Amino acid sequence: MKEKLGPKLAMYPSLTVLAGSLVDKKPNFLPIAHVGIADSSTLTLSLNRIHYTNLGIKHNKTFSVNIPSEAMVQKTDYCGLVSGKRTDKSDIFKVFYGELETAPMIEECPINMECKLLLTLDMPDHELFLGKVVQTYVAKEYMTGKAVDMTKVRPLLFNLWDRGYYQMGTKIADAWSAGKELKEKKT
Amino acid sequence: MKEKLGPKLAMYPSLTVLAGSLVDKKPNFLPIAHVGIADSSTLTLSLNRIHYTNLGIKHNKTFSVNIPSEAMVQKTDYCGLVSGKRTDKSDIFKVFYGELETAPMIEECPINMECKLLLTLDMPDHELFLGKVVQTYVAKEYMTGKAVDMTKVRPLLFNLWDRGYYQMGTKIADAWSAGKELKEKKT
Repeated sequence: MKEKLGPKLAMYPSLTVLAGSLVDKKPNFLPIAHVGIADSSTLTLSLNRIHYTNLGIKHNKTFSVNIPSEAMVQKTDYCGLVSGKRTDKSDIFKVFYGELETAPMIEECPINMECKLLLTLDMPDHELFLGKVVQTYVAKEYMTGKAVDMTKVRPLLFNLWDRGYYQMGTKIADAWSAGKELKEKKT
Repeated sequence: MKEKLGPKLAMYPSLTVLAGSLVDKKPNFLPIAHVGIADSSTLTLSLNRIHYTNLGIKHNKTFSVNIPSEAMVQKTDYCGLVSGKRTDKSDIFKVFYGELETAPMIEECPINMECKLLLTLDMPDHELFLGKVVQTYVAKEYMTGKAVDMTKVRPLLFNLWDRGYYQMGTKIADAWSAGKELKEKKT
């Protein structure tokens, strides 16, 4: 028998990103793990509507998604402890801009995506932003051949159940492959 | 200098789930890692519109999200290798139903969520389903105290860059805590 927990969202661990927007002409960053994949080049970002970052996203209709590495855990977490309303976060990271000009990106993050806001959905607690990725930036040392190497990126995975940041672990199987033996058995 | 990869969605690794729906009165399951968190109890599921599972979600306005454990990697991957259009997947798992009655859930998955369809967004390649979690089920052996213990669940994390399933790794820091020292320094 299973326990009923009530309507608990149990989608963890989830990738931790630093969402970036320009508010009052200053870059502002917030760690967010309430993210998702909406389409081939569209992602979702769910931010409680109290956040300062939202103002910049709605004003500019652009934002950035930056993937911090394990070594950046202190700075990443710090950005979630202070609000841009009272604390200037523009000097924490070296910032660069891409094609959109109003989506500040973090140089020291291995991966950056600049996004155009496609749609905002008003959820009961959060604003859900759908962003179309316009350009993706990766530092060469995090690539193996032509693909991004996540074992080099060392992303932070967020687990709300124990409020912890986790590493990505070991590869255990290939997708579209691990089930082949079973498929042969069944046919 | 960073490399420009073009508009590449780089939101990996992402949690692998088995999405469940009832199509022609038969339970059908599909592994999906294009998932997300939309609000406190609302999740997203992005499915290419060619999939059979979509028919059941749209017809019943319900679906399930089941989190497989590492030990289920073969069966999970198998469900992605065969389509419900041609292959009956109703006998792969022991299935149970909850309050919604039309959202088939997988007994052997550590965690199950039954969801009501709130909204469907037509994306260029995918259908994006927003589902409100109605009830969450967890087997007792995957809990520590009153919280789900993801180190016992051993979820499958999907990495598109190398088409691999990965384990969740080691905990490296506490959220809303790792940045406290930096906060004190700055104030």
